[in-house]
Amino acid sequence: MLHPTALTKPKARAQPSQDPIAVLGAGAWGTALALLASSKGIPVYLWARRAEHAQAMQEERQNQEYLPGALFPEHLHPTADAEEALARAQFAVVAVPSRGLRETLQGLPKAPAYVSAVKGLLFAENHLLRISQVIQEATRVDRLAALSGPNLAEEVARFLPAAAVAASRDPALAQQVQQVFSGPSFRVYTTHDLVGVELGGALKNVIALAAGMVDGLGLGDNAKAALITRGLREIIRFGIAQGAQEATFMGLSGLGDLIATAHSPLSRNRSAGEQLVRGRTLDHLEAQKSVVEGIYTVKALHAWDQATGADLPITEAVYRVVYLGADPLEELSRLMGREAKPE
Amino acid sequence: MLHPTALTKPKARAQPSQDPIAVLGAGAWGTALALLASSKGIPVYLWARRAEHAQAMQEERQNQEYLPGALFPEHLHPTADAEEALARAQFAVVAVPSRGLRETLQGLPKAPAYVSAVKGLLFAENHLLRISQVIQEATRVDRLAALSGPNLAEEVARFLPAAAVAASRDPALAQQVQQVFSGPSFRVYTTHDLVGVELGGALKNVIALAAGMVDGLGLGDNAKAALITRGLREIIRFGIAQGAQEATFMGLSGLGDLIATAHSPLSRNRSAGEQLVRGRTLDHLEAQKSVVEGIYTVKALHAWDQATGADLPITEAVYRVVYLGADPLEELSRLMGREAKPE
Repeated sequence: MLHPTALTKPKARAQPSQDPIAVLGAGAWGTALALLASSKGIPVYLWARRAEHAQAMQEERQNQEYLPGALFPEHLHPTADAEEALARAQFAVVAVPSRGLRETLQGLPKAPAYVSAVKGLLFAENHLLRISQVIQEATRVDRLAALSGPNLAEEVARFLPAAAVAASRDPALAQQVQQVFSGPSFRVYTTHDLVGVELGGALKNVIALAAGMVDGLGLGDNAKAALITRGLREIIRFGIAQGAQEATFMGLSGLGDLIATAHSPLSRNRSAGEQLVRGRTLDHLEAQKSVVEGIYTVKALHAWDQATGADLPITEAVYRVVYLGADPLEELSRLMGREAKPE
Repeated sequence: MLHPTALTKPKARAQPSQDPIAVLGAGAWGTALALLASSKGIPVYLWARRAEHAQAMQEERQNQEYLPGALFPEHLHPTADAEEALARAQFAVVAVPSRGLRETLQGLPKAPAYVSAVKGLLFAENHLLRISQVIQEATRVDRLAALSGPNLAEEVARFLPAAAVAASRDPALAQQVQQVFSGPSFRVYTTHDLVGVELGGALKNVIALAAGMVDGLGLGDNAKAALITRGLREIIRFGIAQGAQEATFMGLSGLGDLIATAHSPLSRNRSAGEQLVRGRTLDHLEAQKSVVEGIYTVKALHAWDQATGADLPITEAVYRVVYLGADPLEELSRLMGREAKPE
């Protein structure tokens, strides 16, 4: 039974803001995020770099190229016109590969705020840069957030249950992101630990590459579980040194994302590790349609490690396999035998 | 080139002790542990309760019933004669199901020390008992250890790489266990946190039951990763309240074991969760040849929760599905929606 005051005092704030958002990049994950928000009635402009890609999506009402089968709701507007996409956007979700991100953003109109959905890292001029830092440098906009978690795009697009974390030092922005993407199948939590969320998302791809190598070599679930356990420790150690909070890595955007990425057949980074073991080359991986961020992240981390002497044994082993052609079985065996006796 | 003194002063301590060990219980895991030690030349007496099982193993030189295909090395002696098994044992590995453990041990000769390889818990007279406590009560022997980690028996028996933790408040015993089981494919670390190692091993089976339900319902890897992340948090919260150290749960015997058990097709507890969703009953699970410890652990934890008011939402959800016939999808949905907004 409804109390009369419930009718006279509607809670207007409970409704999601109907201001549009822009999603920059129409890969699988950008498209899945656009689906989530638009299915709630929020207008979403999904910007694709290539005009023919935007046009194909407009005509087919789906992204045949990167996320086939997920039909677009009414409020999802594919476009190659950045002016149109960003004109009234409350924020822009950045969902383009880390390589070329700076140049892409410099060529586009500005948004009032940016939300990184990219799980990568760059190394430039002796500095390791998180994606939000690259966005800030390219746009000079300071309202920045990241959205991250165990979010395989294909599952999210099928509206299977998932959860993520919206991180920002600006609590209002984190809540705005939460409000836009939260729905019956997708729960969004908020945190202020932007550094921890971004590093967890980037570094887990490197561990997923190693996990894929374990799969490719047929070493089994015991070895893979041991590797992931040590991988999380490596991420935490590195993250704390960068100013992140340990608890963040224990949550959805750290451990959760690591577990999903290291196990799912849908994970590009895990699959890439498997392919490397089976003789596929780096050139082949770089030529794939969907970007394998881990192979760039591991390069950035290696450069950082060279410059600063960080202790990243799994990262270095993956680097040697990917870039120096080292034998994966030998590298993994060395990792297994590396640790001192007391755990 | 060998220095002369190397010949006159051989390091006898570097050799593993050749004193025999006893393994009580010839299920898959007991047999795999017997294989590990005996393949290093350590005499192992593998005690089976049933004389016909021991005899079959003697004749076939393998455990056709629980671990077919893994051929026994010379020094592995199957027996149903407990006197023979325990006569000269430096320690006894306990690898029988938690149910009936007390009675089994009370009927056997004593060993100088015991190593639990059982991942379970008992609830009796308003107390929650770890396996080492049950062993102590049944035998009055105080030299106790536990060996635990991501150790799917079928993989260990194939000598695929794996690692585990030997936990004891008696450092000499932990090292003895390490010495007996460490080998090229199996690394053993030591710790004094017996409580943490035992609780991690027991509680992960409950989370694995829930993970199996996620699998059975086809909810995907995102949902499963979120569940495991929260599951680890539930284990840690409970464990710390019981006096365990948080770091133990972040290691091989906590997170590592949880990940392996929640993902492997070989895991009995994960499979049991999947079967429950597909309509198999508790009676069916209890009648299986290999014991699903998780269904007893969840019952013990529920009883403890009732007595003390611990906060164990995943455990309680699994209890309701297993024992009260609750709908798994409804229970998992409630878990997904349960948490407050900030992560």
